[in-house]
Formats: sequence, structure tokens, C-alpha cells
Amino acid sequence: MNKLPKTLHPIIIEYVRPELDGGRYPVKRIVGDTLEVTADIFKEGHDTLAARLRYKTPEHKDWTEVTMHHVDNDQWAGSFVLSENTRYTYSVGAYVQQYETWRRELQKKHGAVSDLSSELLEGKAHITHAMTRAKGEGKAQLKQWLQQFASAPDQERQITIALDSALAALVAEHEVRFAWTTYAHSLEVVVDRRRACYGAWYEIFPRSEGTEDGKGGTFRDCEARLPVIRDMGFDVLYLTPIHPIGETNRKGRNNSLKAESGDPGSPWAIGSKHGGHDAVEPALGTMEDFAHFQAAVQKHDMEIALDFAINATPDHPYVKEHPEWFKQRPDGSIKYAENPPKKYEDIYALDFYSDAWQDIWQEMKRILLFWINQGVKIFRVDNPHTKPVIFWEWLIRDIQTAHPDVLFLAEAFTRPKMMRVLAKAGYTQSYTYFTWRNTKEDIIEYMTELTQTAMYDYFRPNFFANTPDILPEILQQGGRPAFKFRFVLAATLSPTYGIYNGYELCENRAIPATEEYLDSEKYEIRHWDWDRPGNIRDYITHINRIRREHPALQTLGNIHFYSADNEQVLFYGKMTDDKADRLLIAVNMDPYTVQEAKLTIPLADLGIGEREPYRMHELIQDYRHEVVGDEYIIRLDPNTEPAAIFVVQQ
Amino acid sequence: MNKLPKTLHPIIIEYVRPELDGGRYPVKRIVGDTLEVTADIFKEGHDTLAARLRYKTPEHKDWTEVTMHHVDNDQWAGSFVLSENTRYTYSVGAYVQQYETWRRELQKKHGAVSDLSSELLEGKAHITHAMTRAKGEGKAQLKQWLQQFASAPDQERQITIALDSALAALVAEHEVRFAWTTYAHSLEVVVDRRRACYGAWYEIFPRSEGTEDGKGGTFRDCEARLPVIRDMGFDVLYLTPIHPIGETNRKGRNNSLKAESGDPGSPWAIGSKHGGHDAVEPALGTMEDFAHFQAAVQKHDMEIALDFAINATPDHPYVKEHPEWFKQRPDGSIKYAENPPKKYEDIYALDFYSDAWQDIWQEMKRILLFWINQGVKIFRVDNPHTKPVIFWEWLIRDIQTAHPDVLFLAEAFTRPKMMRVLAKAGYTQSYTYFTWRNTKEDIIEYMTELTQTAMYDYFRPNFFANTPDILPEILQQGGRPAFKFRFVLAATLSPTYGIYNGYELCENRAIPATEEYLDSEKYEIRHWDWDRPGNIRDYITHINRIRREHPALQTLGNIHFYSADNEQVLFYGKMTDDKADRLLIAVNMDPYTVQEAKLTIPLADLGIGEREPYRMHELIQDYRHEVVGDEYIIRLDPNTEPAAIFVVQQ
Repeated sequence: MNKLPKTLHPIIIEYVRPELDGGRYPVKRIVGDTLEVTADIFKEGHDTLAARLRYKTPEHKDWTEVTMHHVDNDQWAGSFVLSENTRYTYSVGAYVQQYETWRRELQKKHGAVSDLSSELLEGKAHITHAMTRAKGEGKAQLKQWLQQFASAPDQERQITIALDSALAALVAEHEVRFAWTTYAHSLEVVVDRRRACYGAWYEIFPRSEGTEDGKGGTFRDCEARLPVIRDMGFDVLYLTPIHPIGETNRKGRNNSLKAESGDPGSPWAIGSKHGGHDAVEPALGTMEDFAHFQAAVQKHDMEIALDFAINATPDHPYVKEHPEWFKQRPDGSIKYAENPPKKYEDIYALDFYSDAWQDIWQEMKRILLFWINQGVKIFRVDNPHTKPVIFWEWLIRDIQTAHPDVLFLAEAFTRPKMMRVLAKAGYTQSYTYFTWRNTKEDIIEYMTELTQTAMYDYFRPNFFANTPDILPEILQQGGRPAFKFRFVLAATLSPTYGIYNGYELCENRAIPATEEYLDSEKYEIRHWDWDRPGNIRDYITHINRIRREHPALQTLGNIHFYSADNEQVLFYGKMTDDKADRLLIAVNMDPYTVQEAKLTIPLADLGIGEREPYRMHELIQDYRHEVVGDEYIIRLDPNTEPAAIFVVQQ
Repeated sequence: MNKLPKTLHPIIIEYVRPELDGGRYPVKRIVGDTLEVTADIFKEGHDTLAARLRYKTPEHKDWTEVTMHHVDNDQWAGSFVLSENTRYTYSVGAYVQQYETWRRELQKKHGAVSDLSSELLEGKAHITHAMTRAKGEGKAQLKQWLQQFASAPDQERQITIALDSALAALVAEHEVRFAWTTYAHSLEVVVDRRRACYGAWYEIFPRSEGTEDGKGGTFRDCEARLPVIRDMGFDVLYLTPIHPIGETNRKGRNNSLKAESGDPGSPWAIGSKHGGHDAVEPALGTMEDFAHFQAAVQKHDMEIALDFAINATPDHPYVKEHPEWFKQRPDGSIKYAENPPKKYEDIYALDFYSDAWQDIWQEMKRILLFWINQGVKIFRVDNPHTKPVIFWEWLIRDIQTAHPDVLFLAEAFTRPKMMRVLAKAGYTQSYTYFTWRNTKEDIIEYMTELTQTAMYDYFRPNFFANTPDILPEILQQGGRPAFKFRFVLAATLSPTYGIYNGYELCENRAIPATEEYLDSEKYEIRHWDWDRPGNIRDYITHINRIRREHPALQTLGNIHFYSADNEQVLFYGKMTDDKADRLLIAVNMDPYTVQEAKLTIPLADLGIGEREPYRMHELIQDYRHEVVGDEYIIRLDPNTEPAAIFVVQQ
């Protein structure tokens, strides 16, 4: 037999939105956003309900309440501004407004029922009840109303008083919340600073920033490059790992198994006699140099993202200090990282299933706090899908509790559900499948998934157009036109995007039949000629300026795809909510051939009448057309300009 | 700071389906159904997982486990047969198969890596571990395998042993479930007996079954009518309330405020000096008569549904015995039931918000158990949307724990979300909006909602074509043709449907501009001439026989709507899963005019080739057509036959 409840909380509150997986994970928003909450709220019978949206931040014990209003069909809505960079809790409560319920019944009976004396006695009891609970001014006012009510000469006059909306408001304020019921879950929303959703990233290998042949770059060299990077319009400078690189089984050029003398090894092979994750590779400089560099980055209006890769070389201090953190094989040796039949013999993976797993969690937290104390606020996490998801959930929550401005980018290129759960578990941003979405249909489908499904509430894409691991075929084959249109797509489809350096040089030499760069910086020191012919630095600079000047490009969900009668031409629009900024973008996704398309201008979405003239101002090549009607013919020559970004003006 | 977990349960298990509102409410199935469960299950890294669907009934403490298999894209599936009429709990668990993980890695390395001696030592450790845990025969076999392994002449032979699938199965059976993780929720499925989803209901006022003018019918009179009702093909005989009717403020004919002498009052005004909810109205007979009647109903292969209406007249024993169960007004009087400005002065509503609410709950349970002990297994509950939903949730669960074969039909004609939550909270079946769905578009939309949304998991419609409260306009206006086609719709769209008596007589006299019957049985004793001209008893008999002979008509979810090129002609199909029974049904929804339509026969769904001949055998008028191709012209004359039910034969 199931037990009777002890108290009666009879109101149905369900389908509270947003809610992710029944409240299992938080949704995400940005400081300044308004959180719009809806819920289905109803009760048996005909009582008049009131509903409250309630929220609090970790600093507050008590709920702040917002009145919800009935929308339609038992759905209620309320909202509040997420003004702080923190993790809010929110929920919904509802109750019966007893006086209002009685008052509405009185309204209906008035005129239809002759004797309302018993009803009026009920009303008086409600007012008296509220008066008893009220204090100060409220109490005094209610007392006055009661006196008026008592001295009313007749029933009609009493009814007039009882129906008075000022009295009703006063009683509502003080009466008990009858049948008070709260939603079963407390929900959470992680509110990040704006960089979480908007920013242009630029990735470098610091050691490639040297200027002398045969000599690796240092943090000082990196400083020298900052004005150039800043001038291109980037916001985040992402550094591949800067920690000491192991010597045992160091990888050579082009991922060869044996390093030659002078080969620097992979920066992801972390740990040497010079230290581990809380040290810097001596060839780059000292911790003081890093601090100096970081200050310079800030002066250039950018911020650093560090790589967080949980790998240890055989030379990492952990190996000696904590052999229990690694998987011992029966023969006593430590197990290399592997993805059979591939072995990564320069790396040991920490064993998250060792008996000491809790110590590993704490040490990873210590490492992150170490760099946070150095001023680092963004971490790009290497291969998070190879560590337990609950570890990340704990770690990110723990770090952000003290440092809510710290952001985490998940470098998980894996199966879709794992990518999604990492975002749900706490990752601020996620790498995506963007590099492999190369047809018009693919892009529309992928953007629809990112913006029109539950993913929109928790998964923030960072559209990297290339990475040290991914030189996509379209760039290898399509050359400069491809570099240009893929850049426009990354920078305008997603408010957060990135490139790995060399992109601006249209570097496209790959190891044949792979997406690996030839002579990859992962395994050797490179020197780039940043002014080399064919580069698209000015183009990137221009597009980044357009991004900064147009708020429509700074959010994700405002994308709409429109009709272009050519399968190679993608046509989409982005507008601010107030329609002050209206952009239409057409991209020729064929890097080889001129494509022409009839675009259907979405006049209704733009708020333009069918016979109203408007101006299409193209921002890349800076031309203007006066237009009437919804037809616009465009011709996109990949060799001159594969894309067009129009601002619509009236 | 949030705490570290104490143990590591790292596998992600999410989106377990079916799951209703995050597990808040149970889903529903029928005895004999197979419960198909899917879940997204995955883990970081490359481990080989195993997953188990687990279930138990209240009689069992331990889970029964079923192996789940990987479907695609990290989704897993498993199923089990719901063989008992009870409430099952089910959930999902998963773990790492350590030996299988190791074995697959060995397969990949074999040939690619030269020395596998360290790997083979790992494998031996896994086998030894399993052997240690095994008992009896398993232990002996594993010991033998280990001996073979130890005495293998070379690595190659050891590898062959290690890869042996018989050994792998044996180790899998005995090794520990590494990283065992269970889904966060235990879910429930209420498994009802078949009558919950399939049955034809017939509603009567027992007092109208009399045969002598001026004298009300008795249970004995009802008995006399059973052969006729049974012969029409009904399964459930639903009796309007049979309890003593109050005298105070008794309603007169056609709902007049004052009863004349001899007026019997509304059966829903329960309670008199003869007793309350656990008594029968003396005019109908005694409890013994009722028992005799009930036995007769069973002998006629039907069962009784009783009306459960939580109303009390001023004369109900509760009023004297439990005045605290009613709402006292300030003037000391008890508040009548009301829906302002309407008052129901023959009824007091029990106050579910009185301090004694728990006593009311227990008393309502006692009443139900009283009738269950008399053999009643179906309750049609009057106006459940005027009592707290959590009361029903408790009551139904409590009753069904001891009596899982008891069914509850919710008579809630109210807002959609309330109707849905009553079903979620436990109602076996629900009244619907069917009577007000009168266009082809309306029917398709409503059936789609009932069968293609989450509702399908918990909301079982009972399509009453009329009720004592609802004589729909289409029947008032459309006469006999309307009675026929609405009957066919009710009986073939939904496996459970009902009519209130008089339907078979095409009784359609209403109080003008209302859906109320004129001279309603609710307020007076009627005598019906069951053989009166124009009746459709034979038609009903025929359609009910078709329902019994065709299993395709006995489930809800198998409906598909097909194309008919006429807005008045609804065309749909119902097939059994094995396609042994294939029905196509066309209904002219215009009761006034002959309608012709070109039907597109869904050859692909039927499994018929485009040039393959098949036979359309119409069951109502019994004609047959040999057909080739997907075009079929039909002409439906409402005055002869507004509907056609084809069985497709080959």
C-alpha cells in the first residue's frame, strides 16, 4: 500500500522549460540574457491561480520571485534578467488566490443570485484573514476597508467594496498562499560571460614564432607578433601546449617514430626533467616570460586560451611521484596510450580507473587553478572524450564555482552523443563537425540541428575552419577560393569560430590521402612568412571587422536559411531581434566555378513591403543596389569573390 | 565546492524510452505486450560495453535481467514480455566487458604488433580473475582453459586460445561487471488486462429498464434485457449510479429546480435515509438483487462498470456523520456544489481541502473496495477533474496494488492538459473530444494526437458516441445516417468505444440550442421501445461482430490515414502487425449527400505489388471486387450505407 501524502500540494506544475534531460543538466545562457521560463500550471476545479518563477544564485539562500502570467491553454510564462556571471537555480511555484477566486465567483453571481449575504460573510472572512497577517501600512489599510465594509448601508454597497480591485490587490498581497505547490525539480542555468558565445580564435604553436632560422620561437617572439594578430581582428589567442616536452620516445618530423637530434617533439607529449603540467618548456622561456607575454596579450585586447591535455610522457614527474596513477602491466611496465593497433609511445595515459582516481581528479583541479592564478581564463581541452564524463562534470563545476569566468572548449571529435553529453556536463564550447560539412544541404542540416533542437540550450559551437590535425580536403583541393568561402562560412554562421595559423597563408600541403599537414608543426619548428604571396590576411581582417560592426553576427540562434535556386549557392540571413541590423549572406560553395543564383529576398522577415524600395549594401566589395521586390540575381566568381555579405538598408 | 563522488559509475545512460515526464508517471501496456526499451549508452574511450534491461514486479525483490544489443549510434535496445497484470519497474544498467575489450584489442594488434607477450599476460590475468569468481562447472572449465593457455607451445598458439569465442563467453559470464552504472531512474509500466484497451460499452439507467408504465425498472428488469444487449455485441454494461437518491432539493423533469411528486431525482444526487455510496437505491432492489444481476451479467459474457461520483446530497449519511468533510459557510450552512453562477442545490461537494482530507481519501478507498468485494472491476469516475489529481494518483495506485484488474475510466470533459494528467496519474481509460470532432481534418488531427504523440503511452481513449450529457449536434441534425457513420467511426477508430442507450433508436430529441436530451433519463423514468422503427440494432450488431472477428480493430496505434479525393470522405486502414488482417475503411462524413471519392489504396503498406490482383471484400453490405492497382472509386450514399469496411484479400 502506498502512503497518503502528509500535506496537500495539489497544483499540477509540469513541462517547465527550459529544462534539459529532466533537470539532470543545466542549460546555458550569457550575462545580460533574459531567461524566459514557461510551465504548464493548473488545478482541479475553478480556482484562480497565481504562479511565481523563483531564482537564486549561490550567494543567496532565499529565492527571488517573479510573477508569471497565464499565456494560453494552462501555460504560464515569466522571465528575469541573468545579470551575473554565475550558476542560477530556478524553479516554479503556484498557489490558489482565495480572495480572487471568491471575488470572481461573486462577480458571476452578482445579478444572477438574489441573496448574497452568505457569500459576503465569506469575503469578509478572507479580508479579515489577510488583515491578521498584514503588518504596518497594509494592516492599517485593510482595517479601514473592513470598517467601510461593516458600515456599508446595504448589500449592494458591500458588493461594490468587495469587488474593488485595490482591495483585491491588498488582500492578495497578504493572504496565505493556499495550496502552495512547487515544481518537483530545481533547475540550473549556467550564465557565462560574453566570450563564451562570441569570439574569433587564432591558434599558434608558440615555438614557430621565432625569426632566426633553426631556432625555436619564445614567448618574447610571440609578443612581437601580437600587433599583427590583433590587427587581423582576433579575440582569443590559443596556444598549443607550452609545457616541457618529454625526451623518451620523442616523435620526429611528420610523426616519425624516432626523433632526430634537434627535433622538438610534440607539445602534447607533456613532462620532462623540467617539470610537468605546471611548468613551461624552457625553450619558450620562463614563467616570468609567460606572465609578461600574457600581460602583453591583454594589452592587445585579446586573451589567451591554454591547451589542457591530460597526457604524461615517461619523463613526467608524475611517473616517479605517482606510479599508482598509471596502468601497470603484468610485466611491471607502464601501459602506453594506445588506440589499437596504434600506440602512442611518447605518452602514458593517466589511469582514471586506478584506485587513486580521486587523487588524479584533485591534481587536475590543482593544475587548472595554477594557471587560473596566472590569469588564464580559457582552456581548450584535448580529447575530453577519453576521460570519464563525470570527471569533467565535477571539475568544471568545481572550477566555475570559484571562477565563473573560466571557459572550457571541448576538443572532442567523436560520436555525436558523446560530443553532446560533454557539452551538457559543463563544457562552455565545443568543436564541431563543421570542417566536414561541405554541401549546402549539409550546412543547412547541421545549423538546424545546432539551433533548432535541444542542443541550442547547451551546445555552443566553435567553428574551427582548420586545426593542426585537420586540413580538410576542400581546402587541400579548392585552394584560395575555398579558404575564402570556408572562412566566410565559419565567421558568419557561428559567432565563435577559429583558425589555426597558416590558414591566412592558404597553406594546403597535406600528407597524401590524409587530413594531416605535411611537415606539421606538431613535430617540428616552422618559420612562416606571414606576408607570403596569395595570403588572405586582408580578407580575414575585413570579415572580422564586419563581425565586430554587426551585432547580428554575434549570436547563433538568429540564423535563417532562404531560397537560392542553385545547389552551390547557400543563402542565409542574420538579424538582431530589433531588426536594426539585417544581414543577408550568399556563399558560392563551389571553389572552381562561377555560380549564378536567383535569391528570394525574405521581405516579410526583413519587415519590407512588397513594393517598398530598399538598398542591398554589399560589405566585402562595397557595392550598393537599390531594389524593389523579392528577386535578386547574384553571380559569385570564386576567383574574385566567392561570398557576398549584404546589409539591408532602407 | 562540490564533492567528489565516492564511487565511479562512469557510463552515460540516457534517453531511456519509454519514459514519461522523466519517470514521474508510469507508461501503460496490456498483458502479453512486449515492452521494447531503448537507451543511449556510451562511455569515454574504446571499451566494449554490455547493457542489461532489468525489470521486476512488486512480488519480486530482485531484478530479472535481459541482454540489450547495440542498435546504432550508441543506442541500445532490449525487450521483455509483460506477462502479468501488475505494475512492473524497469531500468537499464551497463558495464565494461574487460576481457572482451582486451580481446578486441588483441585482434587488432595481432599481425600489426610483433611482441604481444605483455598483452597475453594481461589476458591470462583476466581469465584467472574470472576463474576465481566462478563456481562449479564454470570454474572447472576456466581452469582447463588456463592450463591449455599455460602449456601452449608458443605465442601464436596462446593468441588462438585467447581469441576463442567459447573462452570469451565463459570469461564474460564470470568476470566482474567493471564500471557498472545504472540509469538514474527506475521507471514503471502499468500492465492492464485486455479489457483496458478493447471493449464495446453500453450505458443504461437501470431504472429505465422497467416494463410497466409508471413504474421504474429494477435489477431484475435489467437482467431480462441482458440477452438483447449481449446479442448486440457489447462487452461492458455501464450503469449510471445505483445508490439511494436524495430527496432534499431533488431535481425535477428536464432539470427543473423542483421535483414533482413521483419524480425519481438524478442518480448522481447520491445519499438518502437508505444510505450512501455503499448502498443501493431501494427502488432498484437490494444488494442481493444486485449480486444476482451481476452474476447474470457475467453469465452473458459481459461485465459491469459502476459509476463513481463523489457527490453527497443533503440527505447523505456523511452529512450527519462527518460534517467536517463539507465546507461550512460563515452562516453555518453547508456550501452547495456550484459552478457560478450555476448552483447544484441537490448536491454538496466533499471538501477535499478540509482538515479531514485524509479521512475522505480513506473513505473513498473503502467505498471502492466495498464494490470490488461485490465483484465490480470497472469504475467510470464522474468529473474527476474537480478533485485533486494527486488524490486519484494515490487512490488508483492503492487499489490496483491489491486489485490490478480494476479499471478506471475518467469522465473528464475539460481542458486538454487536465485530461492528459488524469491519464498520467493512473486512469486506465479516458473520455475524449470525439463527439466534437466532426470533420475529416478534425478526426485525422485528433487520431494523430492520440496515436503519434507521447499520449499514446498513457492515454487510452474510450470513444463514446453519445452520453446522457452529450447529444451532439451532428446526431440531432443528421438523423439516422449520422447515427450510423458516427457509430462506425467510434467502433473502428478506437478499440474501446461506447454508446448510451437510445443511440440504437437514433433518439435525437434535444432541448433546443443545447446538447441535452429532451426528457432526459437523468431526471425521469423512461420506457424505451427497443424495437421502434428506424432503429439500428442490427447495424450495431453487425459492426460489433466485425470488431470481434478482426483483430486489426482491437488495437489503437495501428491506424493510418490514406488519400481520398473528397473532403467529406475519410479513408483509413488498420492492419495487424503480421498483416494477416488488413482492413480499409471509408466513411462519408456528410449525412445529407451522396459522396463519391477516388481512394488511393496503400499497396506498399498492404504488401501488394502494383500489378498484383487483390480482392476488396466489403463487410457491411457484403460485396466483393477484384482490383489491380491503387485506384478505387467509391460512392457512399448516407441513406443506404454511409460507410464501407473492406477486408483486403489475396
